[in-house]
Amino acid sequence: MADKKLVEQITSMEEDFTKWYTDVCLKAELVSYSNVAGCVIFRPYGYALWEAIRAEFDRRFKETGHQNVYMPMFIPESLLQKEKDHIEGFAPEVAWVTHGGTEELTERMCVRPTSETLFCDHYKNIVHSWRDLPQLLNQWCSVVRWEKTTRPFLRTREFLWQEGHTLHATAEEAVEETERMLNIYADVCENVLAMPVIKGKKTDKEKFAGAEATYTIEAMMHDGKALQSGTSHYFGDGFAKAFDITFTDKNNKLSTPFETSWGVSTRLIGGLIMTHGDDSGLVLPPRMAPTQIVVIPIAAHKGGVIEKANELAESLKAAGLRVAVDASDNSPGWKFAEYEMKGYPMRIEIGPRDIENGTFVAVARDNREKTILPIEGSAGKVKELLDAVHDRLYKKALENRERHTHTAHTFEEIREFAKENCFIRTAWCGDEACEDRLKEEVGVTSRCMPFGEAPVDDVCPVCGKKSVTTIFWGKAY
Amino acid sequence: MADKKLVEQITSMEEDFTKWYTDVCLKAELVSYSNVAGCVIFRPYGYALWEAIRAEFDRRFKETGHQNVYMPMFIPESLLQKEKDHIEGFAPEVAWVTHGGTEELTERMCVRPTSETLFCDHYKNIVHSWRDLPQLLNQWCSVVRWEKTTRPFLRTREFLWQEGHTLHATAEEAVEETERMLNIYADVCENVLAMPVIKGKKTDKEKFAGAEATYTIEAMMHDGKALQSGTSHYFGDGFAKAFDITFTDKNNKLSTPFETSWGVSTRLIGGLIMTHGDDSGLVLPPRMAPTQIVVIPIAAHKGGVIEKANELAESLKAAGLRVAVDASDNSPGWKFAEYEMKGYPMRIEIGPRDIENGTFVAVARDNREKTILPIEGSAGKVKELLDAVHDRLYKKALENRERHTHTAHTFEEIREFAKENCFIRTAWCGDEACEDRLKEEVGVTSRCMPFGEAPVDDVCPVCGKKSVTTIFWGKAY
Repeated sequence: MADKKLVEQITSMEEDFTKWYTDVCLKAELVSYSNVAGCVIFRPYGYALWEAIRAEFDRRFKETGHQNVYMPMFIPESLLQKEKDHIEGFAPEVAWVTHGGTEELTERMCVRPTSETLFCDHYKNIVHSWRDLPQLLNQWCSVVRWEKTTRPFLRTREFLWQEGHTLHATAEEAVEETERMLNIYADVCENVLAMPVIKGKKTDKEKFAGAEATYTIEAMMHDGKALQSGTSHYFGDGFAKAFDITFTDKNNKLSTPFETSWGVSTRLIGGLIMTHGDDSGLVLPPRMAPTQIVVIPIAAHKGGVIEKANELAESLKAAGLRVAVDASDNSPGWKFAEYEMKGYPMRIEIGPRDIENGTFVAVARDNREKTILPIEGSAGKVKELLDAVHDRLYKKALENRERHTHTAHTFEEIREFAKENCFIRTAWCGDEACEDRLKEEVGVTSRCMPFGEAPVDDVCPVCGKKSVTTIFWGKAY
Repeated sequence: MADKKLVEQITSMEEDFTKWYTDVCLKAELVSYSNVAGCVIFRPYGYALWEAIRAEFDRRFKETGHQNVYMPMFIPESLLQKEKDHIEGFAPEVAWVTHGGTEELTERMCVRPTSETLFCDHYKNIVHSWRDLPQLLNQWCSVVRWEKTTRPFLRTREFLWQEGHTLHATAEEAVEETERMLNIYADVCENVLAMPVIKGKKTDKEKFAGAEATYTIEAMMHDGKALQSGTSHYFGDGFAKAFDITFTDKNNKLSTPFETSWGVSTRLIGGLIMTHGDDSGLVLPPRMAPTQIVVIPIAAHKGGVIEKANELAESLKAAGLRVAVDASDNSPGWKFAEYEMKGYPMRIEIGPRDIENGTFVAVARDNREKTILPIEGSAGKVKELLDAVHDRLYKKALENRERHTHTAHTFEEIREFAKENCFIRTAWCGDEACEDRLKEEVGVTSRCMPFGEAPVDDVCPVCGKKSVTTIFWGKAY
């Protein structure tokens, strides 16, 4: 059977999760390796996933008053060096352009790893008065970081992302902005991508180079590892001072503004794969799936079957659903396997007997549940079935996270839990020494200090000093 | 008066067209200069123009079966060198990356100036059988060419564009594709951007490095200079051979496929500015204007005016129009000048007296014609007025081109016509020597050999040899 054969090509998750991941990326035709070391090619289906994710965020950014711009991809070395912590963090991992045509540049430039310095330089030129604030800019682009080991979507030398950069008259407004954007990130992850996330703050050790505070959403993958899925940074007035950005406030006094930046990237596609995928391939949440339903005619050579399949597809499209028909001469079995591999949330089977009965069969991708529906007037019911797919995917991911989240009260408990991939919730004294010790001796890093969680203990389980926060530890992509 | 003041900030077109252009780019806040030599910042309004243009093309590409992908931004030197003519054309103008972090690369890479080589390398991996053809891929990205002199939109070291790259089983199909895409380019230019274009073929001297044939659309700017606005290239099987791409055809024979590429870029924004702009600033064609109509309340402090303005805006939005309301406390005069500068195709004025009469005033940007319309049920009429703006803009641009197009029969006539910026139509023998002579002695370059034009003369006016084609000469951006 053709579908057997196809499915067999994917390594099972249990056998080798890493290989399963790579198999899905390549066999669902999301990416292809390139001759450019550390970079991948986004193939049509992989890029369509990014277009779908991008559209969801872009709409929300615009609704909250943000505007898109485009900055140069190069940063002169002297500009990158203006903020001390920033250059220290990024210099070891940037690509340097040294020649233009046959001439050596008088000053080398890096390909942007992130664009805080460019936005600051621009803000210095365009912001003069309180009337020019806030500045709420964003750009969709690619950035380059010279990683040693790479994996499709999760870590590549070039990746696609958005970077928001905003400037505000007050610290309060800037902090509010970082929260607003973190909430938008969480909203899209949970309500569109069906990926539950934990919102929290990064430790000083893990925060962004140059930030006063970094906020994060952390998701748990099927294998129990964490994926940092989006970050929002509060810079205070550090960058503004380094770049000499000032404005005349309402009292006619020269002031320094406060800055934020925030970003999500194509690593969310990796998150989708590892959150929802199974041994048959990709499983896409219906609200973002480029195609939500594929209609497969059965015994398609029989008169009227393809016509009826097309009619049904058109009526579902008219109801706002994203539908394709596969009337090719591949076998139904091959098609079932193909669209399962590609993670289409639902397939519809319709053959001569169904048509006689005035019905069709809807099969959900995630649990293979079949529902028989009347051909006429079922669009509303199909939408309900798709919503149910979303809900099940979210619930399953949440249960996976809960099953792999443990509260530890002693160093030994942490060590014990960390033998498998999981989130470990503990109290923490706030001291980087304890963070370092856990990384070295146990192999876990701090994921975030979650918002609104009750204290776990009064003392830090690592050093026994007074606890100041609850924190999550884990192994991360 | 505020509007006087604003308008006076723009140099008049007659006085200095180049300075007028720069003034519009900066004062309509389309771009800002950056500290990265030769690159500009696309500010929100400038980027919104690109988003609008991109959406028009992207829809048409997808409707004709093309899919978007994303290739790495880097090209290893050895890959760029695979096609001889191509590397000769591009090597002098690429930016070279030599270091990743602190390490020198074993092979330097350029930032893509165009991506034929990357697509070929990819096609070699994914194309094996006739079933894999055609490949109809496109990408939206930025490219880098190390230009010496730069101008916003028209020539910058980094610019945004799309590059389509397709692979076909037969030469005929590939040629058809180049024509199809050239027609799509012309369609968007004429029916959306209101820019008349001449479709034709480039001479061998002017064709793309590595192409067998380059097709082009050429527009004329307000000052009589030409703007090459989009190109479509037929590569034959040259690249496929250089990259060793083969496929098994329907007769089970190993064959070499045929390739095309085609692109339009942010220079179209420069084209919009120089085709339609006037001494008050930008004039945008209504079908692509991000905001088509701005509603300006008059005597806005009077009760009910702002409410009525908002109501009117909502009713127009509900009819599918893109509408903004400016209820800020700037004076109406300031607002008139501001939105004229930004080229909004129409403004609507509505004040207490209008409301009493149940009417509003619509003012077209291009000719300032005022139309009084009833507040209720005028959406259809407003659409007609906007269509009339489109038609007038197109007609005016076409008349400008016709006024500045001359047919020359002798070398002296060419020299005489070339004293002003214009298109000069002549016969041509096809010999590059005549092309070189016209460039050196007269300062004009060949724009294109237009499709479907009647022969001008039997002999070439430059050398007196037999003519083989009609050709347009001109000065170009």
